[in-house]
Amino acid sequence: MPSAVILLADGTEEMEFTITYDTLVRAGVACCSAYVPAPADEGSEKRQYATGSRGIRIMYDAVFDETQFLPTSYDALVIPGGAKGAETMSKNTAVQSLVREFLAKDKIVGMICAGSQAALTAKLARQPLTSHPSVKAELENDFDYSEDPVVISNGLVTSRGPGYFHFLLIQMRIMLTTGRIAGTAFPFALTLVELLCGADKRAEVRAPMVFPPNTPF
Amino acid sequence: MPSAVILLADGTEEMEFTITYDTLVRAGVACCSAYVPAPADEGSEKRQYATGSRGIRIMYDAVFDETQFLPTSYDALVIPGGAKGAETMSKNTAVQSLVREFLAKDKIVGMICAGSQAALTAKLARQPLTSHPSVKAELENDFDYSEDPVVISNGLVTSRGPGYFHFLLIQMRIMLTTGRIAGTAFPFALTLVELLCGADKRAEVRAPMVFPPNTPF
Repeated sequence: MPSAVILLADGTEEMEFTITYDTLVRAGVACCSAYVPAPADEGSEKRQYATGSRGIRIMYDAVFDETQFLPTSYDALVIPGGAKGAETMSKNTAVQSLVREFLAKDKIVGMICAGSQAALTAKLARQPLTSHPSVKAELENDFDYSEDPVVISNGLVTSRGPGYFHFLLIQMRIMLTTGRIAGTAFPFALTLVELLCGADKRAEVRAPMVFPPNTPF
Repeated sequence: MPSAVILLADGTEEMEFTITYDTLVRAGVACCSAYVPAPADEGSEKRQYATGSRGIRIMYDAVFDETQFLPTSYDALVIPGGAKGAETMSKNTAVQSLVREFLAKDKIVGMICAGSQAALTAKLARQPLTSHPSVKAELENDFDYSEDPVVISNGLVTSRGPGYFHFLLIQMRIMLTTGRIAGTAFPFALTLVELLCGADKRAEVRAPMVFPPNTPF
């Protein structure tokens, strides 16, 4: 069974976290949410929950620990957005190391929205990438910045934000005509499913989510 | 400030709950999640969290209490899907009464996915409605069943399921040409925003969610 660790912090965008976790579980991926405490918030890891960017309190499965969430144990590492949560994750040196280790071991690293800041703080090599527009200025000098809803660069999968969940027809036509995988947070999550579990599982998960007849993915 | 009570139970579809709550908070709607315990699960209200259909544990703001969540205090009542959660809510006689009271007071009742079963158990009059396809057979004899992604019938707003979050271009063209409001869970949530806070607020909330340039809503 493929497995994924999905980071969670105070200020994480709860839609991005939830859609990714939920869709991967539907695919049979064993998911573990790992709480990254903010440095100034000592003892917060005893609370058992993170407070999302819009106030939804989500209980985490574990506290983040760099010795536990290794690419030898997990197939994917996901960094959701939400300005404050993404800042906490991307400034965490253990998270930065783990991003590099997952990619070095040919595992998958997903970053959505402001989560893409971790590509910069982890000092990844110049490569194609996207993010929430609010952090584009920080990223465009060091990466081949793209406005595509989902960008895949070897193991690094990046996406833009919750509003892009709807970006389908136009981008999907690009995908169908160019062979590139595009989409956004639902397509982002389904892309992770396909990379982890194969195209058959993607189709199996997609069916009960009742996409309308004309949805082109 | 408009206010909404969003029900939560063990087995609630966590994407539907989260997208609705998050989007309404972005609009400045005061949201309260209220936990409905399953009848066979005595004492579960002491747990402080509900376990969603895909295992995400969400802490609730309050335990559901029919004397507290009245249409005199709240402007909207939302019933998310997820088979087990929707069953718990729709079989709860206090929820059934409250659905009728909100509608009688010209307040808004939103039902998504299997949540639409509550329209049947609350014995609402025949009217246009939609739901997740899996519960269509239970509803189509008593309601004017529609396959539209979002159906508005006076105060009753119904939608279909998580996969319909993507259903935009075609349905939105129908909306733009016929004046009917259509869409799905994001459009569903934005529709609730507009009904509660007006069109200006809908536009204000929509902007930072970064919908792509050609999104027709």
